[in-house]
Amino acid sequence: MSIYVIGHKIPDSDSICGAIALAHLKNEIGEKAIPARLGELSPETQFIIDRFGFEAPLLKMNYAGEKVYIVDHTEKTQAPDDIDEATIVGIVDHHKLGDLTSSTPLECWIRPVGCSNTIIKMMYDFYKVDIPKDIAGIMMCAILSDTVLFKSPTTTTADRRAVEDLALIAGIPDYEALAMEMFKVKSAVEGTPVRELVLRDFKDFNMNGHKVGIGQLEVIDISVFDSIKSELMADITNLKAEGNRHTLILLLTDIMKEGSELILVSDDEKLIKSAFNLEDNSSNWLDGVLSRKKQIVPPLQGAFNS
Amino acid sequence: MSIYVIGHKIPDSDSICGAIALAHLKNEIGEKAIPARLGELSPETQFIIDRFGFEAPLLKMNYAGEKVYIVDHTEKTQAPDDIDEATIVGIVDHHKLGDLTSSTPLECWIRPVGCSNTIIKMMYDFYKVDIPKDIAGIMMCAILSDTVLFKSPTTTTADRRAVEDLALIAGIPDYEALAMEMFKVKSAVEGTPVRELVLRDFKDFNMNGHKVGIGQLEVIDISVFDSIKSELMADITNLKAEGNRHTLILLLTDIMKEGSELILVSDDEKLIKSAFNLEDNSSNWLDGVLSRKKQIVPPLQGAFNS
Ligand SMILES: [Mn+2]
Ligand SMILES: [Mn+2]
Repeated sequence: MSIYVIGHKIPDSDSICGAIALAHLKNEIGEKAIPARLGELSPETQFIIDRFGFEAPLLKMNYAGEKVYIVDHTEKTQAPDDIDEATIVGIVDHHKLGDLTSSTPLECWIRPVGCSNTIIKMMYDFYKVDIPKDIAGIMMCAILSDTVLFKSPTTTTADRRAVEDLALIAGIPDYEALAMEMFKVKSAVEGTPVRELVLRDFKDFNMNGHKVGIGQLEVIDISVFDSIKSELMADITNLKAEGNRHTLILLLTDIMKEGSELILVSDDEKLIKSAFNLEDNSSNWLDGVLSRKKQIVPPLQGAFNS
Repeated sequence: MSIYVIGHKIPDSDSICGAIALAHLKNEIGEKAIPARLGELSPETQFIIDRFGFEAPLLKMNYAGEKVYIVDHTEKTQAPDDIDEATIVGIVDHHKLGDLTSSTPLECWIRPVGCSNTIIKMMYDFYKVDIPKDIAGIMMCAILSDTVLFKSPTTTTADRRAVEDLALIAGIPDYEALAMEMFKVKSAVEGTPVRELVLRDFKDFNMNGHKVGIGQLEVIDISVFDSIKSELMADITNLKAEGNRHTLILLLTDIMKEGSELILVSDDEKLIKSAFNLEDNSSNWLDGVLSRKKQIVPPLQGAFNS
């Protein structure tokens, strides 16, 4: 029986590239594995897999009765709806430990690093399996994406070292140029429906019993949003209501200015603003904030728990 | 700020030896760590640490505001009562994934092997840190205990290989003789208060909202219990009521006959017996059952969830 290797809902590049890379490793060590995905590819991810000649993994939403290997999260809200009826055989992740549980012993490779693919690189090293050139390419791109070319405060020396190694294997010494190409694809927002933008990199969190949705758009120049900000605001208001959410936040991240503007609707806007020490009438610019995981989720969780 | 390395409540040899071994490793790689424990040592564990010249780790029950590294479980019921106010920085475990969560990214070394100390051995190898002779000794004993000298179905080749390596480092080629000595200590039940016996290796589980306590006593000859079985039955009846448990099970495991007798009190005895295909009036002997984790908990969980 094959194992399905899957990332999270609304998959990002780490989820897709990680599923492909980890499934390859599993097959190499004699465990039959199939990479799969829980949603559409983002333009960035499509760019990456095109660049290295891969197909999108199998789109599959239901896993009852199947064995699954989870990549890039440990949260029920980000897992298949029927995850309780599946057998989780393993997890690779770099986030806080969430509420997924298993009914049998499993393997978990969880490390406080910038990207799941950095950990998958460690797994290849552990099993002494060579990484094919094209797989090294997508793994490298995933790490450059998750760490925003090492600008994110989530970046560790392990991430840098993994990229250096993978760049050698992939034969792409100038990985910075590739990263900028990738970020340009990511920054193209014109002509895209706002709902698609809001959901492009979107995660729901359970914060002390409240459902909090947080989307993030990383661009090279935040001014691309100037003309559509009111449309974005209207759309997150709708999305909040549709999902019975307590709060919906969209982070507009400028990776060159290295900061994020926060646009939000909430049942308790004061609470959310206080979590980031924002004054009532201030602009919502958060200088130096690039990471949802490290700079947005923990203070919010703190505010909801206090 | 030091990290406290702690096993589970009612610590077994894996929890205590693992805390000592992992704290040593952490200190070697430059992270200040202190081994601690959540309860009294069992006679077996006392034998092991005496044999290799260690002191019992610090007895400490409260961890609010502290950093902790968890060994040998991922269950809230087995963790410090104030674990939600502590920061979990890492987990080493070999059980199913339980309901512990963290508020920040962490490291988890979880593997489906027979003992946490087998994984700690992998960590020493990963960090390329030499294992001191005495620490190799306690790690080896923990693995021999958890795997019942490789008789338990939880045993993997990784456990055997770890013991072989550790026996060399410890300078104890005849580790089987040491294991038998250890099991003899464990089998001495005479003169011990029954409550102490019942709690010697006891864990509470949350099964579909029901609290289920499962104790296990491993001995070389199950007939040692003949004269105290009615006392044991009376005591688990009391213990079930004291903890508002749905079910309380005590496994009397004969490691030479390789099987366990199950004595139990339950709000739904039929359910429990059906989980193990036991007839209403049959004896409760389960042939080949040595492992609570692999052979008792999963069928019970299945019965409670169906
Ligand atoms: Mn990621
Ligand atoms: Mn153990």
